[in-house]
Amino acid sequence: MNDDSFSLEVFVVSQGINRFRADLRDIRFRLFEQFKLGDLLGTAAYAEWGAEECNMVIDELYKFVCDRIGPLNSTGDAEGCKFENGAVSAPTGFKEAWDALHEAGYRSVATPEEFGGQGAPFAMHAVVEEMLSGANCSFNMYPGLAHGAAEVLMKFGTDEQKKQYVEKILGGTWGGTMCLTEPQAGSDVGASTTKALKQDDGSYLITGTKIYISAGDHDMTENIIHLVLARTPDAAPGTKGLSLFIVPRDTINADGSVGERYSNDVTTGSIEHKMGINGSATAVLNFGEEGKCRGELVGTVESVGIKQMFLMMNHARIGVGLQSLGVMSSAFLNALEYAQERKQGPNVKQWKNPEAPKVPIIEHPDVRRMLLDMKARVEGLRALIYKLALHTDRERAAKDNDEAAAAYHKGQVDLLVPLAKAYGSDQAFEVAATAIQVFGGAGYLHDHPVEQYCRDAKIFSIYEGTNHIQAMDLVGRKLGQKGGANFQAFAGDIGKFVAAHKENPELGNEVAELGKAMEALTGTAMRFLGWFQGGQMEQVPLAANRFLEMMSETCLAWLLLDGAVVAQAASADLADGHPDKPFYAGKVASARYFARNVLPAVKAKAEMVGTADTSPMDIPDAAFGAW
Amino acid sequence: MNDDSFSLEVFVVSQGINRFRADLRDIRFRLFEQFKLGDLLGTAAYAEWGAEECNMVIDELYKFVCDRIGPLNSTGDAEGCKFENGAVSAPTGFKEAWDALHEAGYRSVATPEEFGGQGAPFAMHAVVEEMLSGANCSFNMYPGLAHGAAEVLMKFGTDEQKKQYVEKILGGTWGGTMCLTEPQAGSDVGASTTKALKQDDGSYLITGTKIYISAGDHDMTENIIHLVLARTPDAAPGTKGLSLFIVPRDTINADGSVGERYSNDVTTGSIEHKMGINGSATAVLNFGEEGKCRGELVGTVESVGIKQMFLMMNHARIGVGLQSLGVMSSAFLNALEYAQERKQGPNVKQWKNPEAPKVPIIEHPDVRRMLLDMKARVEGLRALIYKLALHTDRERAAKDNDEAAAAYHKGQVDLLVPLAKAYGSDQAFEVAATAIQVFGGAGYLHDHPVEQYCRDAKIFSIYEGTNHIQAMDLVGRKLGQKGGANFQAFAGDIGKFVAAHKENPELGNEVAELGKAMEALTGTAMRFLGWFQGGQMEQVPLAANRFLEMMSETCLAWLLLDGAVVAQAASADLADGHPDKPFYAGKVASARYFARNVLPAVKAKAEMVGTADTSPMDIPDAAFGAW
Repeated sequence: MNDDSFSLEVFVVSQGINRFRADLRDIRFRLFEQFKLGDLLGTAAYAEWGAEECNMVIDELYKFVCDRIGPLNSTGDAEGCKFENGAVSAPTGFKEAWDALHEAGYRSVATPEEFGGQGAPFAMHAVVEEMLSGANCSFNMYPGLAHGAAEVLMKFGTDEQKKQYVEKILGGTWGGTMCLTEPQAGSDVGASTTKALKQDDGSYLITGTKIYISAGDHDMTENIIHLVLARTPDAAPGTKGLSLFIVPRDTINADGSVGERYSNDVTTGSIEHKMGINGSATAVLNFGEEGKCRGELVGTVESVGIKQMFLMMNHARIGVGLQSLGVMSSAFLNALEYAQERKQGPNVKQWKNPEAPKVPIIEHPDVRRMLLDMKARVEGLRALIYKLALHTDRERAAKDNDEAAAAYHKGQVDLLVPLAKAYGSDQAFEVAATAIQVFGGAGYLHDHPVEQYCRDAKIFSIYEGTNHIQAMDLVGRKLGQKGGANFQAFAGDIGKFVAAHKENPELGNEVAELGKAMEALTGTAMRFLGWFQGGQMEQVPLAANRFLEMMSETCLAWLLLDGAVVAQAASADLADGHPDKPFYAGKVASARYFARNVLPAVKAKAEMVGTADTSPMDIPDAAFGAW
Repeated sequence: MNDDSFSLEVFVVSQGINRFRADLRDIRFRLFEQFKLGDLLGTAAYAEWGAEECNMVIDELYKFVCDRIGPLNSTGDAEGCKFENGAVSAPTGFKEAWDALHEAGYRSVATPEEFGGQGAPFAMHAVVEEMLSGANCSFNMYPGLAHGAAEVLMKFGTDEQKKQYVEKILGGTWGGTMCLTEPQAGSDVGASTTKALKQDDGSYLITGTKIYISAGDHDMTENIIHLVLARTPDAAPGTKGLSLFIVPRDTINADGSVGERYSNDVTTGSIEHKMGINGSATAVLNFGEEGKCRGELVGTVESVGIKQMFLMMNHARIGVGLQSLGVMSSAFLNALEYAQERKQGPNVKQWKNPEAPKVPIIEHPDVRRMLLDMKARVEGLRALIYKLALHTDRERAAKDNDEAAAAYHKGQVDLLVPLAKAYGSDQAFEVAATAIQVFGGAGYLHDHPVEQYCRDAKIFSIYEGTNHIQAMDLVGRKLGQKGGANFQAFAGDIGKFVAAHKENPELGNEVAELGKAMEALTGTAMRFLGWFQGGQMEQVPLAANRFLEMMSETCLAWLLLDGAVVAQAASADLADGHPDKPFYAGKVASARYFARNVLPAVKAKAEMVGTADTSPMDIPDAAFGAW
């Protein structure tokens, strides 16, 4: 906090520049060419939407985030949130951006029309989240959490609750949050002690403290609607006894008007000082310190709160995958731009000639390797999440007329959510770190966006369920769902792809490598089955993260190769010199790189899981170390 | 920069708490039990030093850094350096710490007595660097750079220069820097354009701009002595034409007194705003803007500057390895402490019982896995760097009486330096990120030290030669040194270890795995040889980083297993219940974990190198992406 950095900050706040970059061509390729979004458009579920409408949204959205949201990313980081006199204010410019976003209606693009939305496929919502979070992930936390709260109420609220809350939240008049974590409980949500005591009028008195509440307090909306997990007096212990309550920060009068700030006895204890996402307020919230905090039950039944919250968690986990994608994609494209512009050193073929001309660093082999590595990871994750989104849309399209198809699509969504969240967030951090390396010393400075991306991304692996919780969800719940049918369908899809393309002249070896990885993955899944059946429960958490990684890498390789096959066919139809030729060549290149440089490690990981190593359990506690 | 964070900062500055942790028992184990430092003590080269003296230094040093240096780490991060009116000041408390450090004399522990040092083995200097950097790596940049400058002058300076500069720098009266990087040149040091024009009095007029100069300006010393690479008018292009100059920031009068600050026409243009190491000033320095900046040649010969600077670079690279070690070790121990204290969730065996008692998170399998993973990486890197340090000491001890032994030891030092720097720095970042994950959400907050460790550590992979430059040094220079003899000796040492211990009842499988990794490594080295001989020069940089990683992991596995064998023997002599029993069990556990969970990937990496993938070179520039 010195004068110099302060003056820099003032400069940046007033000059905020957009550094967000998105590859719209790849977004369209994955949506339309690879995953055939067009097949769904115009059908009953999405009658109003055609390719033209989707493309227009994509174009306008990109312009909007670059103009209005992106410029506030570094300024929000430098300024942070303010906490003064018990009230939080968001960074300069966030309120105006909030209003502009809700006026434009992007966040409601896939919301049903009955709630004021536009009824687009969920895949379009994924694009919106990717771009908003990539442009400014701190900012997008506020509407993102609000949107999640609205979704819970759309699904589980009474008609009255829907009417009272949903449109106001989705329209940006009120904010929203999800309040799970407590100081003593952390990931152990079942240990929550926040209390809810039913009153004669049917409302509940809420008392307790929640921490790490994203968007927990701010000055951008008239009110904030907290969804709070709490326990009624006679409820069961653990997660089963939790109920979900609507707790407005400020009292809502009978006529719908809102009382003074904090009038519902919800106060903000403090905000956290963090490694990143500094524009996002992370609050400690105290409910009912004066015994006057009123909440109402979501729906009409107690003790189903964890199930209700899980809907929100599931969307939030996909949201973290999309944050990861947006941030890592922009990190990659910023590094690419820098590599094209920054001249340094001679071409490697002339490295001994001190008078050789200096070339853009994109010519240097190790820079190209880093760029292609980032490109493959970004495109692979995009393919994974868009595939997930389109399974959601296909499930919806099929659910009234093809039960088996709907079940298949839902099963694939369930299976892919933990991959999107955990593998995605780990990759976002890694790719941002690689982007710093491409910039060299410059990447370590606030002058370029990549160090912020890296700091911001670290939280992705922790919140909305740590990545280990995702891995346990995958191996402990998802693998065995429907007697393993979802995983078998996933494996079957890959098997069909391998069979169909193993003779591909350009990619045959890579497709064969995919087959080997899938075999290793299936073998490893069988080991887990054996551990569950044999009661070797400690093996499961020890190997769960590695399994998630193996499955993610196999899945990314498959989807990159699938995209490459689509690109080959599309490119073959084009005349030489067509501007799309290099684009399609890029799809083949990222698939090949990933299959040769990442995928082979899946076999090695299977070997490691196979040793059933228990050394972390065998080591005596006192042997870890001392100081 | 809001009121709230400001008041926090003031609080922290006044309350600075030490969060540094070091495992002295492991430090002593590696020095004395594994690498037999005792064999060197009392011999001619280190006549004054016995085990007791070494142990006393270690104990007092730890107390000193915990008392005086550690408490300034988070406060220096929060406050940063100030740049006002063209002058830099270091964070609050750094000046007092600087004086205390030089008074205590720790940095000169291994400096020859003729320069006021204490003549200890270099291994003791390694311990000093590890602890100082671990306690506060920003602070230790200042004396570290000064020390490096003094070493160059000790080795290459004229007698007069030695007399004038060395003791003042080592005693802390004057600071010192190394000035290589220029805005247009970056890693391409040969493109430097800073000019040196010889004057009639034998001095040189220096003009040019240097950037990213660590400790480039501050207010802790009477003067700062810059060592500046510059080019004389008729010198060759590239690195061969560079000379090294002594350029004091402030004019030094004939009587040795120092003129006004910046009187030698060396001005500070700005300081950088960074992701981390915020307590370390990273300066832009302008030399001779008014045409009055005087320098003197180091030694008496022009155009040997790069060779002279390389001595400093080599020490600086070992220094980065030690920074990495100190930081990651403290990150691990902080996570361990938190895991022992933080209670959350039930034991895995009772996970279905919501009323089961909450346990310290160290009981959870995934937490144990992360802790053991960090432990193995920390101990492995410590073993690697201490081995390197003891090779330095053994070379010195042997150089007058056993040429072959001296050459062997020097060869191993050369080979290990790029591993210590590059693998070490990558691991420091990874381990710090894992430590954050152990803390969960709390790890993302400034309340705990691990997020700062992660931010600080990112620069380690960039400065003093990026990690790719280290990898190229390894495969392009070190592998082929002396016709490959150094690498063959390294491989031979591992081969002997494998042969001797392959029947070890506890570790036989792990030793066998080491043998396979070494085979894969040797095969990969042969591939590089083939590429060099066949002119496939582009393959070399594409695969260099992966080779460095393979060799580092093989080396760490070897040294961990070697330590485990030593520990087995030591433990066998102890009665049950002896307090050292768990310590020795920990050595076996970390070796076993690493051999089972990291080492097997070496084979997979060899397979990947074996595909000689050229996709990063094949992809057309236009195919990387667009926005």
